[in-house]
Amino acid sequence: MRPFRVGVLVSGSGTNLQAVLDSVHREEGIEVVCVAANRAEAEGLARAETAGVETAVFPVAEHATRTARDEALAEFLTAHEVDLVVLAGFMELLSPGFVGRFEGRMINVHPSLLPAFPGVRAIEQAIEYGVRVTGVTVHFVDEGVDTGSILLQEAIELPYAPDIERVEQTIHAAEHRLLPEAIRLIARGALREERGEAGKRRRIVIEGGRHGEH
Amino acid sequence: MRPFRVGVLVSGSGTNLQAVLDSVHREEGIEVVCVAANRAEAEGLARAETAGVETAVFPVAEHATRTARDEALAEFLTAHEVDLVVLAGFMELLSPGFVGRFEGRMINVHPSLLPAFPGVRAIEQAIEYGVRVTGVTVHFVDEGVDTGSILLQEAIELPYAPDIERVEQTIHAAEHRLLPEAIRLIARGALREERGEAGKRRRIVIEGGRHGEH
Repeated sequence: MRPFRVGVLVSGSGTNLQAVLDSVHREEGIEVVCVAANRAEAEGLARAETAGVETAVFPVAEHATRTARDEALAEFLTAHEVDLVVLAGFMELLSPGFVGRFEGRMINVHPSLLPAFPGVRAIEQAIEYGVRVTGVTVHFVDEGVDTGSILLQEAIELPYAPDIERVEQTIHAAEHRLLPEAIRLIARGALREERGEAGKRRRIVIEGGRHGEH
Repeated sequence: MRPFRVGVLVSGSGTNLQAVLDSVHREEGIEVVCVAANRAEAEGLARAETAGVETAVFPVAEHATRTARDEALAEFLTAHEVDLVVLAGFMELLSPGFVGRFEGRMINVHPSLLPAFPGVRAIEQAIEYGVRVTGVTVHFVDEGVDTGSILLQEAIELPYAPDIERVEQTIHAAEHRLLPEAIRLIARGALREERGEAGKRRRIVIEGGRHGEH
């Protein structure tokens, strides 16, 4: 049987990629078929190579425009016939054309309980605000910043005077659980995104009853 | 010893008031000394009377302006020497003068994990957005809409296709736990609000170590 083909985009250390490689890659009919980075220094590239996964680097500076870079990146993913694009700590916004091309087939992991604290520095934002509960969200990617349909969320309690490093560890550990779980649920067809009428919110549809429920 | 004196404001059914009356009123040195409503039909008034607590009604329509109503309400609370004002389902915004008068001594319970879904219809907002985790927040009241310093939060998981009535029940049950708990923590001096420099966020300060931690 053809595996469920996953392409992963990284920018940094690639610990979320590692969690995916360790837990779903070449298991349950899932295969990470390619990993792309926006910078050659992304440590995630070495993790992919160690796992025998093909890699490529697409720096904006090596293309005429950001849109041209995104087109090249989209071609790379399409050439690898990916069923799902996973943003695993990919730190650049992707152009609307790219997002549209992978509509309903691209997910991101974000270190807060969206819609609270979208954008960069989400963990710091939550600590500065003084919330007692934050968490992790896996969501489909749309044109907005962290505004897409939510697949999975996990809550994490914060102490009154949180130590940021300890919070980061806890949040990242939750990311490493939730992102592979989301890939598994999509691969087995348990969850998909259903686009509503124009202007209406998209919904997550559960196939085959509630077995896929988190 | 003088009890810790609490005044409660209600608009509707008063189930949060009931939770306070049942769990902290005349216990641990706490006393609900008065209950005020913005409308005579608020069922919370009868709950207060049953508990032997003095009540009063302050409809905006019976005062020249909303500010005048808020001043009368503030006088009523001050005459009862309240140490803490508790908004328990009080459905009107209070004027800046009123808020300033009870700064750091007024709390509210809100049916979401703030800063997500402030304002009215918070439970419906969360369900419409499609979050997998929502919850309850108890916070100090400032001039904004549900923007004050957070005292307590509790997360609640939602199913993919939530039944609103069941979610409301779960949220309200959490409110009935968290609001009395917040009153207890403030009464025993475990938590207070510390105002920072102008423009800076206020913080919750924990007295006597971390015993008060939720």
